[in-house]
Amino acid sequence: MVKFVGVEEVKKLIQQEGIENFTKGVMARVKQDFAKWEEFDKSPRHATYLSEGPIELMPVANETYYTFKYVNNHVRNNEKGMISIVGYGALADSVTGYPLMLSEMTLLTAVRTAATCAMAAEYLAKPNAKKFGVVGCGAQSEFQTTMLADTLGLKEVYYYDIDPAAMEKFAANLQTNQFKLIPMPSAASMLEEGVDVLTLCTANATQDPVLQGKLPAGIFINAMGGDAETKTELKRDVLDQADKIFIEYFDQTKDEGDIKCYGEEEAKDKVYAELWELVSGKKPARENNEEIIIYDSVGFALEDYSVLTYVYDKIKDDPSIRTLDLIPELEDLKDLYSTVG
Amino acid sequence: MVKFVGVEEVKKLIQQEGIENFTKGVMARVKQDFAKWEEFDKSPRHATYLSEGPIELMPVANETYYTFKYVNNHVRNNEKGMISIVGYGALADSVTGYPLMLSEMTLLTAVRTAATCAMAAEYLAKPNAKKFGVVGCGAQSEFQTTMLADTLGLKEVYYYDIDPAAMEKFAANLQTNQFKLIPMPSAASMLEEGVDVLTLCTANATQDPVLQGKLPAGIFINAMGGDAETKTELKRDVLDQADKIFIEYFDQTKDEGDIKCYGEEEAKDKVYAELWELVSGKKPARENNEEIIIYDSVGFALEDYSVLTYVYDKIKDDPSIRTLDLIPELEDLKDLYSTVG
Repeated sequence: MVKFVGVEEVKKLIQQEGIENFTKGVMARVKQDFAKWEEFDKSPRHATYLSEGPIELMPVANETYYTFKYVNNHVRNNEKGMISIVGYGALADSVTGYPLMLSEMTLLTAVRTAATCAMAAEYLAKPNAKKFGVVGCGAQSEFQTTMLADTLGLKEVYYYDIDPAAMEKFAANLQTNQFKLIPMPSAASMLEEGVDVLTLCTANATQDPVLQGKLPAGIFINAMGGDAETKTELKRDVLDQADKIFIEYFDQTKDEGDIKCYGEEEAKDKVYAELWELVSGKKPARENNEEIIIYDSVGFALEDYSVLTYVYDKIKDDPSIRTLDLIPELEDLKDLYSTVG
Repeated sequence: MVKFVGVEEVKKLIQQEGIENFTKGVMARVKQDFAKWEEFDKSPRHATYLSEGPIELMPVANETYYTFKYVNNHVRNNEKGMISIVGYGALADSVTGYPLMLSEMTLLTAVRTAATCAMAAEYLAKPNAKKFGVVGCGAQSEFQTTMLADTLGLKEVYYYDIDPAAMEKFAANLQTNQFKLIPMPSAASMLEEGVDVLTLCTANATQDPVLQGKLPAGIFINAMGGDAETKTELKRDVLDQADKIFIEYFDQTKDEGDIKCYGEEEAKDKVYAELWELVSGKKPARENNEEIIIYDSVGFALEDYSVLTYVYDKIKDDPSIRTLDLIPELEDLKDLYSTVG
């Protein structure tokens, strides 16, 4: 029987540990898996572009587990009272190919994305960073903010969204946290304020950039919103200011990340390293307080692997977890027919 | 809420209609979908090759539905008392990207494969075919046999497997059917017997061919077992005897089908048509009783689409179908955080 981890179970798991601890647990797992990068079978996600938005499958595996995530991005869903990005995923035993667990991943994706960005920030933000800016106060923003603030010890959170209601929601959700919340009038004002760490988490699908202007020395930009062929946050004029650009996985990011503006050949030169090279010590992290560093994040399947295995380890021996009859049980393995014939 | 169609529900659905009627319903749907071939977003399946076997994802979509199947092929599972090929799949709304149904697909794959092969045979077998041969009496064999016998009105079924127990099981499962069952000592003996239609459904992963020798005039060979990079049933000496080779989808079959022995360029010349060209009348079917025709089947995602939409239409308004909380329900669509924060 296959274990089923629904929205209810994920809520319970997160609330038992608290969102910060749960995300930290996932972050440790992401770090561990990125350090073993070379043992994984990797490929760019499989995207199907439909009129209303893409639907993607994100598989990855090593010889222990195979995982994949289903995720969409239908921006007009909000007009219908539906979430624009929903996800679910599965984990299977690589040795038998049997599925072991199906899980919701709308919540888990927010967690693993925050965990991965926080991991990147640990290596790439200035050690004395205090000011955190966030552009885009949508579904991912609080996960990012709490995790980055917690990991880096940030004290001031500057936030902006084109939608004032999203800013209010953001502030309401984070009011009990230990940092000061400062609303801002624009993305550009974050640069003027001189934020040390800036997360862009917009769903911008226009061709207009989210951020323009001169980047302050030492800034770390976590550009996680420009994560599809159709989505852009940063243009060449901003990317060119970076001393180092980090990405997750070139074969995927070249088509989805903001670096796609360069074209494949030039992008190869512009990218300093993939995250795993940082985690495994093959490439140095930040080398001084002046470096401008951009992490062009698009979300990679290995992060889903990390969160799914993290959840699976927690639930696999729990008898209260629901199970699904997804696989027939046969007395004679060659006799499927008598099940229905 | 997402509908869940487990093994229990699929058994019930099939038993309500009877396996023949259910498969005929799916066959009508496959025909209808193949006739609309050009409206689908198609790609070769995504395969991950692990030490013990491949795990594959098979997505396809049009502007109405997106479907995918998860399927593995772990031949050594049988030693552990486990099925070597298991599958499950999902159907989503293309307009919103929301998943609508998850379903078992071990049983449904056997059904859709039989349905597709029967559809091909309707076009490609001799009109007066009487003798049906089946090599490989594994999990798929009875589905193939009943469906082909029923569709073509075949009267004699010749069967062979390297495993005598599989042959006994095959005979036991089909004893009440309207055709005569004749056990055979080898694959080659089928050719000597002069079968009109021959289905190869082996899991042969050695490099030795399953079938060798001179093909009788007018035979239709349904080669559905050589469906992966590692699996081969027919070699060049047999394929070369065909007047026409049909396949499902060149971009996938070139790497998985028996035609892979030719290499991509030569394979292009050897292939007469893709099945959809037959269904939509772009290419003629069998033109005389002498033609030797091979259908090099590997299984394509569109067949999964057909069976999943067929099942979905049957269960979508059934209040007794189980549902899964796979997607969070949010009061404020931008507020995912307060669900867990």
